[in-house]
Amino acid sequence: MAVRLIECLTTDAEFSDLFSDESVLDAMLRFEAGLAWAQARLGMIPARAAEAIAEAAARGGFDTAAMAREARDSATVVIPLVKQLTARVEQTDRESAGFVHFGATSQDVIDTALVLLLRRARGMMAAHHDRLVSRLRQLSDEHRGTVMLARTMLQPAPPITFGYKAAAWFAGCNRGWGRVAGRLDEAIVLQFGGASGTLAAYGDAGLALASQLAAQLELPLPAAPWHAYRDGLAAMVAACGVYTGTLAKVARDISLLMQPEIGELSEKGGDSSAMPNKRNPAGCALVLAAATRVPALVAAFLNGMAQENERAAGGWQAEWATVSQIVQATGSAVSTLSQVISGLSVDAARMRSNLEATRGSVFAEKASMLLARKLGRSRAQAIVAEVLAESDLREGLAANADAAELLMPEEIANIDSAEDYLGSAETFRRRLLGED
Amino acid sequence: MAVRLIECLTTDAEFSDLFSDESVLDAMLRFEAGLAWAQARLGMIPARAAEAIAEAAARGGFDTAAMAREARDSATVVIPLVKQLTARVEQTDRESAGFVHFGATSQDVIDTALVLLLRRARGMMAAHHDRLVSRLRQLSDEHRGTVMLARTMLQPAPPITFGYKAAAWFAGCNRGWGRVAGRLDEAIVLQFGGASGTLAAYGDAGLALASQLAAQLELPLPAAPWHAYRDGLAAMVAACGVYTGTLAKVARDISLLMQPEIGELSEKGGDSSAMPNKRNPAGCALVLAAATRVPALVAAFLNGMAQENERAAGGWQAEWATVSQIVQATGSAVSTLSQVISGLSVDAARMRSNLEATRGSVFAEKASMLLARKLGRSRAQAIVAEVLAESDLREGLAANADAAELLMPEEIANIDSAEDYLGSAETFRRRLLGED
Amino acid sequence: MAVRLIECLTTDAEFSDLFSDESVLDAMLRFEAGLAWAQARLGMIPARAAEAIAEAAARGGFDTAAMAREARDSATVVIPLVKQLTARVEQTDRESAGFVHFGATSQDVIDTALVLLLRRARGMMAAHHDRLVSRLRQLSDEHRGTVMLARTMLQPAPPITFGYKAAAWFAGCNRGWGRVAGRLDEAIVLQFGGASGTLAAYGDAGLALASQLAAQLELPLPAAPWHAYRDGLAAMVAACGVYTGTLAKVARDISLLMQPEIGELSEKGGDSSAMPNKRNPAGCALVLAAATRVPALVAAFLNGMAQENERAAGGWQAEWATVSQIVQATGSAVSTLSQVISGLSVDAARMRSNLEATRGSVFAEKASMLLARKLGRSRAQAIVAEVLAESDLREGLAANADAAELLMPEEIANIDSAEDYLGSAETFRRRLLGED
Amino acid sequence: MAVRLIECLTTDAEFSDLFSDESVLDAMLRFEAGLAWAQARLGMIPARAAEAIAEAAARGGFDTAAMAREARDSATVVIPLVKQLTARVEQTDRESAGFVHFGATSQDVIDTALVLLLRRARGMMAAHHDRLVSRLRQLSDEHRGTVMLARTMLQPAPPITFGYKAAAWFAGCNRGWGRVAGRLDEAIVLQFGGASGTLAAYGDAGLALASQLAAQLELPLPAAPWHAYRDGLAAMVAACGVYTGTLAKVARDISLLMQPEIGELSEKGGDSSAMPNKRNPAGCALVLAAATRVPALVAAFLNGMAQENERAAGGWQAEWATVSQIVQATGSAVSTLSQVISGLSVDAARMRSNLEATRGSVFAEKASMLLARKLGRSRAQAIVAEVLAESDLREGLAANADAAELLMPEEIANIDSAEDYLGSAETFRRRLLGED
Repeated sequence: MAVRLIECLTTDAEFSDLFSDESVLDAMLRFEAGLAWAQARLGMIPARAAEAIAEAAARGGFDTAAMAREARDSATVVIPLVKQLTARVEQTDRESAGFVHFGATSQDVIDTALVLLLRRARGMMAAHHDRLVSRLRQLSDEHRGTVMLARTMLQPAPPITFGYKAAAWFAGCNRGWGRVAGRLDEAIVLQFGGASGTLAAYGDAGLALASQLAAQLELPLPAAPWHAYRDGLAAMVAACGVYTGTLAKVARDISLLMQPEIGELSEKGGDSSAMPNKRNPAGCALVLAAATRVPALVAAFLNGMAQENERAAGGWQAEWATVSQIVQATGSAVSTLSQVISGLSVDAARMRSNLEATRGSVFAEKASMLLARKLGRSRAQAIVAEVLAESDLREGLAANADAAELLMPEEIANIDSAEDYLGSAETFRRRLLGED
Repeated sequence: MAVRLIECLTTDAEFSDLFSDESVLDAMLRFEAGLAWAQARLGMIPARAAEAIAEAAARGGFDTAAMAREARDSATVVIPLVKQLTARVEQTDRESAGFVHFGATSQDVIDTALVLLLRRARGMMAAHHDRLVSRLRQLSDEHRGTVMLARTMLQPAPPITFGYKAAAWFAGCNRGWGRVAGRLDEAIVLQFGGASGTLAAYGDAGLALASQLAAQLELPLPAAPWHAYRDGLAAMVAACGVYTGTLAKVARDISLLMQPEIGELSEKGGDSSAMPNKRNPAGCALVLAAATRVPALVAAFLNGMAQENERAAGGWQAEWATVSQIVQATGSAVSTLSQVISGLSVDAARMRSNLEATRGSVFAEKASMLLARKLGRSRAQAIVAEVLAESDLREGLAANADAAELLMPEEIANIDSAEDYLGSAETFRRRLLGED
Repeated sequence: MAVRLIECLTTDAEFSDLFSDESVLDAMLRFEAGLAWAQARLGMIPARAAEAIAEAAARGGFDTAAMAREARDSATVVIPLVKQLTARVEQTDRESAGFVHFGATSQDVIDTALVLLLRRARGMMAAHHDRLVSRLRQLSDEHRGTVMLARTMLQPAPPITFGYKAAAWFAGCNRGWGRVAGRLDEAIVLQFGGASGTLAAYGDAGLALASQLAAQLELPLPAAPWHAYRDGLAAMVAACGVYTGTLAKVARDISLLMQPEIGELSEKGGDSSAMPNKRNPAGCALVLAAATRVPALVAAFLNGMAQENERAAGGWQAEWATVSQIVQATGSAVSTLSQVISGLSVDAARMRSNLEATRGSVFAEKASMLLARKLGRSRAQAIVAEVLAESDLREGLAANADAAELLMPEEIANIDSAEDYLGSAETFRRRLLGED
Repeated sequence: MAVRLIECLTTDAEFSDLFSDESVLDAMLRFEAGLAWAQARLGMIPARAAEAIAEAAARGGFDTAAMAREARDSATVVIPLVKQLTARVEQTDRESAGFVHFGATSQDVIDTALVLLLRRARGMMAAHHDRLVSRLRQLSDEHRGTVMLARTMLQPAPPITFGYKAAAWFAGCNRGWGRVAGRLDEAIVLQFGGASGTLAAYGDAGLALASQLAAQLELPLPAAPWHAYRDGLAAMVAACGVYTGTLAKVARDISLLMQPEIGELSEKGGDSSAMPNKRNPAGCALVLAAATRVPALVAAFLNGMAQENERAAGGWQAEWATVSQIVQATGSAVSTLSQVISGLSVDAARMRSNLEATRGSVFAEKASMLLARKLGRSRAQAIVAEVLAESDLREGLAANADAAELLMPEEIANIDSAEDYLGSAETFRRRLLGED
C-alpha cells in the first residue's frame, strides 16, 4: 500500500506499509488464530475449530474496505472483522464458526494487534537508529580537532570542535532511542481481558488461557488487562516525542549551518522546482516537519487517557490513528536523518574562516578573565569592549597600554587561538561517546 | 480510495476520498493546466502549449506512488509531479514540454491544490451541518415542554427543558460552523508567487497573470502571495477545533444521558462484540474521539507558523497532513453527529421520573429563597438542608413548623413543580433558535 | 503584584498585573455589586442592600490568600468570595447580608469577571499592536527600494525588497490582530444564568434582570447563558494562537537575519552574562518563547470544551489559568515585538553585498527562462548550471558561446540586476499596506 | 507567596510555594555560592571571595521585582541577578565582587536552579503519592468481595469487584509515579558548561571544577553540559503527563460513579454556591482540570526541543514557566486525588442493586456461551436476545423451552450470580497489587 500523496512528507513507504490494511488485518487475524489455537491447546474448543479458524484467517480475501466502513457503526473494527472471519470459517466448517473470537472482546484484538505492529516498528526504527549513531560517532572521531564557532542565541560564541558537537548529537539521539526502546519493551504486552477485563467467559481458566495466548503470540503477559489504562502506550509515544525532538535539534543545527552565509555543513539536499542550482536542506526539513507534528500528537494521546471505567467512549477510539501517525513520523524522521548524516559534508576550512571573521570577539570572555586577575571584572570588560569596538581583539590588545602591561606577550599572541580555548571539549566529547 | 483500517474511526469514506491520491493529484494538475491556460491567454506561452499541457494533465496514468516516494528527496511533491507531467507532454508535443510549470514554484501548486480541496470540503461539511441543525431545531421545538434535570458537575440541578438543551446544542453548533465557514471563505484564495513571492519570472505581467489564473480556477486573488504567512489556514483549522469541541460537547451530553442508570436519551448506537444486547453510544464515541485529536492537531498547525523568511524549512512541510487530518476528523464528526441526532430517542417519562427521584432536592434553592424573604438566607438554607436530610422536600416543608408558617400552602404544594421553576428557559430557547 | 521570577520570560508587568489578585478580585466584586444594583433597580432587593453590598465590596481588605486556599474545597473561588463578602456586609448591615450573590451561580461570577478582564486586555493589546504596525508601515515605506535576498528553506532566492518583506509582516500582524479583536468583541458578553442557566430564581424577571446587569457592567447580553458553551472564548484564544504565530514569524525572520554571518537586521538586543560585547536577539527570543507555548495552551483550552451537560466537572475549572496565560503570553509578545521593531536597524549595504555574494546564482531562474525561449527549458537549465558551477553568472554567460549568441548584450549585462528582477514586489507591497 | 486567585484551581499552596520568588532566588543563589566555594576549594578564587559571595547571597533583600523586569531586556534573569549579587558583595568586599559568577553562563544558573527545585518537588510528590497508593491498596483489600457492574462505553457490562477496580487504580498510579520518579532521577543533574559548553574559562580545570560544584550541590555530574539538549527534562515532564492522565482516569471514574443515578462512590466533595445540599465531585474536578492542561503543556515543552546550536533563541526561554506549571499541576493533582481517596465512601449495597437492576442482561454473554455449547453461537445469541427483550434473564431462561432443555437447573438459577462470573478478577487484583 503506497504512501498517500497528502502524507508523503510525514511518512515513508517503509513505515506506511507497517500500518497498511494488509499489515493491520494480519495482526488482528494473528490474534484471532492465536486465540483459537490457545483455546484448542487447553481443550476449550475442538482442535478442528482452531484449524478451521486459522485456515480461514490465512486464506486471504477479506474485504477491508467494508470492514473500515462498517467499523463506524459500532465504533470498533472488530465487529465486521469477526463477522467476515466467521463467514469464512462457515464456508469450510459450519460447526467451527461459533468458536471464532470466543470469549474475547473487541479491544483485546485491537490493542494486541497494535502491540504486534509496534514490535515490528521497534526493529525497523532500531536499524535506522543504529546507522545514524554509528555515522555520528565516526564524524565525531574524524572531527575531534576541527574547530568551529559555538553559536548561542544564533550569535557566535567561543569555539568548540565539530567533534564535540557531533558527539552531543550522538549522545542525544542515543538517549532518545534508549527511552523509545525501553518504553516499547514495556508496552509490548498482550491485551486479553474479555468483556470486563475478568476473562469471566473462561471461568477459572482465564489466566491459563492468557498465558497460553501470550506464548502463542510471543508476547509478555502483563499483570492484568489494561483496557482503560493506557499509560504504557502513552509513555511510549511520549518517548517518541522526546526522541523526535532531539532528531529535530540535529536537523535544525544542520539546516542553520547549511545557510550559504555560514556554509559549514551541508546535506546532499534537494532540488528546487524554480531554481536549477539551488540545494535545499530537504532532509532536515522533513525531520523538522515531523517534530512540528509529533509533540501535538503526543498531547492527543495524553488527552484521551482519562478513560471511563472499564472501557472508554472516545478516548480509546482515537488511539490507533494517533499512535500510527506518531510511529510513522518518528520512524521516517530517524530514517531520513540517518540519510542526511550519511551524506553530510563538513567544511572545516569554512568553520575556521567563520571563526576568524569574528576578529577575536568570541575570545572577549578569555581576555576579560585574563585582565580581570589584575583589574577586576568590570574594568577588564570595559577595556575589552573598547578594544573590540575599534579593531581585531589581538591587535587591539597589543596596542592597548593597559593590556600590554598586564598581559604577557604570549597571552596576547594566543588570545584568539581557538585550540587554546577549547577547555574540556575533548573530555566532554569522549564522555558523550561513552569512552571515558 | 478506501479508508484505511488504521484510521477507520477517525475519518470516513467521504472525507477520506477528498484527500485520496486521485483527488489531490487532480487538484495539483488543475493548477498546472490553469496556469498554462492563463499564460496562453496573456500570450506568454503558445496556446498550443496550454492545450498540450491540459491534455497531458487530463490523460491520467500518473504514477502517484513514485511521486510520493520521490517527494522526500526534495521535500516537495511538485518536483516529481512536474517531471511526470513534462514527460507526458513530451510524448505528444516535445516543444510544449518546456512550458510546464512555467515560472511557478512548488508551493504555488501545493497551497493552491490544498485550497481547491478545502473548497470541496466546505460544501461537504455544510451539507452535514445543515442536516444536523435542522434536526436539532425540530427536537427543540418538539420538546419545548419536556422537563428534565439540569446536571452541573454531574449532579442534579434545578430543571430545564430538553427543548432548551437542544436549542443550546443548535446554537453552539451553528456558531461553530459559522466560524469554520467564515474562515474557509477567507482561506480559500489563490497561492501564486513564484520563487520569491514576486512573480519576477513574469516581469511586469505577474499581477495580470495572477488575476487570470485566479479567474481560471475561480478563486479569489489575495493581496499578495502568502507562502510564509499561514494565518489564513491557521484560523481555519482553529475554527475546526472550536467546532469539533462543540460537537463533542453534544456527544458527551448524549453519551452521559444514555447511561442506563439515567436513560433519558439514546442514540441508535452500536453492537458489542461480547454482549449481544448491549447498545453502545458508538456515534458519540466517534465524535468524542475526533475531539480527542483535533485540539492537538490544531496546535501542530500553529507550531509550524514561525516560518523562516520567504519559505519555511519544516513548518510548512508538515501542513498538508495536518490540515487533511483536521478536515477529515471534523467532517466525519459532523457527519456522525448528524446521524446520531437523526436517530436520537428521547425518553420524556424517564426525564420526569429522574427529576422526581431527587425528592425535591433540586428545588432547595427555590425553597431557600422563599424562606429567605422572611428568615434571611443562612437560616433559610439551614431549614431546607434539615428538611432534605430527612425527607422529600415538599412533605418535609409541610411538616416543618417554620416553613408551614412562612410559606403559603400553594407555595409548598408547588415547591417541586418543575414547570413552575423554569425561569427564562423558554425565552432563552427561542433566542438561541434566533426566534426572538 | 510583581511578575514572578519563574514566569519572567513569559509575561510582563503590564499583563501580569491584569491578572493580579487585586484585579481579579475587583472584577468579581464588580459582578456582585452590579448584580445587587441591578436587583435593587428592579425592586428585587432593597436599595439599602445594594448600597451595603457595594460598599462592602469597595471597602477592601479581602483575604485573597484564604480565598485561593478554600477555593480548592469546592472547586470554585466564589464560595469563599461570597462568604467573605457576606461577612463584610454583616459588619455594617446584618439584614442586607442575605442578599449577596442573590440567585446567581459561581460560574456567573467567574466567567463575567474573566470577560471584564478581557475587555481591559483588548485595550492594552490594541495599543501595542498599533505601535507595532505603524512602525512596520514606516519601515516598509522607507525601504521600498532596498533590495535584499529572499531566502527560501534558508537558502538564497531571487531578490525582494525589504519594504515588501516589512509590508508582509505588517499585513500578517494586522490580520492577526483583526481576528483577536473580532473574537474578543464576540466573547466579551455577560454570563448570567443562575444554577441551571434558566435564571429560575428570579421567576419571570430573569431576562429583565440580565439586561439590567448587562447595562450595569456595560457588557452585551448574549442570547442565553453559555455555562457549558465555551466556543466564544475558544475562538478568542485560538485567534491569540494565530496572532502569536505571526508575531513569531516576524521574530524568527529577524533573529535569522541578525546572525552576524548575514547581518542584515538587528534588534537592540540583550547582553550576555559571559560575553561582554555580544548582542543577542533577546526580544525575538521572548516572542519565539511565547509562540513555543501558546499553540499548546490553545489546545489545552480546546481539550476542555466537551463539557458535561449544564456545567462541567474539570474542563471548565482549567480555563482561568489557561486563558490568563494565553493573554499574558500574547500581550507580552506583541509588546516586545513592538519594541524590537522600534529599535530595528536595517543594514541596506549588507543586504546588497549578501546579494552580490551569490555571484548571480539567484538569477539562475531568470537566465534559464531567457535561454529557454530559444533552447527549451532543460537545455537552458543545463547551460545555466554549467556556468554557475564555474563562475559568476554574468561573466559566465558572457563567456559562454551559446548564451552570448542567444542573449542580447544588455540582457547579459543586467542578468544580475536585482532592480530588474523584482517583478510585482512593489505592487504587492502596496496591496499589503492597503494602498492599492 | 500565596497562590494567585487566577491559578487557584490549577496549583495549590504547597506547589506554588516551590516556585515562589523566594524559592527560585534561593536556588539560583545556591548555584552562585556553590560555584564560589568550589572555585575557592580548587584555588581558583580566594577563599575570602567565596565567603563574601556566600554571605551576600545569604543576606537577603534582593529585589526580585526588578530582576523579573530587567530579565526581559536580555532574555535571561541571570544578568540582573549577577548585577544585584555583585553589588551586594561590593558593599562588604569590593575586591571579591569580580569573582561573582566567575566563568559561568546564564543557563548554568537557570538550569541548575530548576534542577534543585525539581529535587524538592520529587520529595513532595512522593509523599502524596505514597498516601494515595497506600489508601488504594487498603480499599482494594477491603473490597475484594464487593461486586459491582463493570461499565464499558458507559454501559453496564459483566461484574467486577470494586477491589479489582481499586487495584487497577493502584497499579496505574504506581506505574505512573514510577516513571516520574525515574525520569526525575535522570533529569536531576548539574548544568555547568560556561559560554559554549566547554568550560573554557577554566582552562584544563573545568571538569575538576564541575565535579567539585556537583559535590557542593549534591547533584550528579552528567557526561557533559546539556544546554541545548532538553531530552532529560522533556522525558520528565512527559512522565508527569502520563501520570496525570492516570490520576485523571481515577477521578473520572469516581465522578461518574458519584452521579446520584449511580451513587456507588462519593468523595467528600464540595459545596455549591446556589444549592445548599448539593455535593459536587470537587476534588475529581480539580484532578480532571489538571489533566485538561498537562498534555498540552507537555507538548509546549516538546515544541521547544529543536534548539539552535549551542543555545536556543526561544525554545529554551519558554521552559521555566512550562516546567513549573506542569509540576504544579501534577503535584496538586496527586495531592488532591490522595485527599479524594482518603475520604471516599463506597456504597456496596448500591453497587449490588445497580447490578440487579440490569435484570441479568450483563450475563447475556454467559448465557450465550452456555447455550452455544449445544446450539452454536448465533442461535444462542438469538435466544438470549429474545429472552432479554421480554423479561429478566433468569426468569426468561427458565420459561424458555430451548433454554430449559439445554441448561441445567443450577445453571439457570446461577445465571445472574455475580460471584459466579468474576473470572480471574481476584487473581488480577492480587497481581496488580504485586502480591502474586
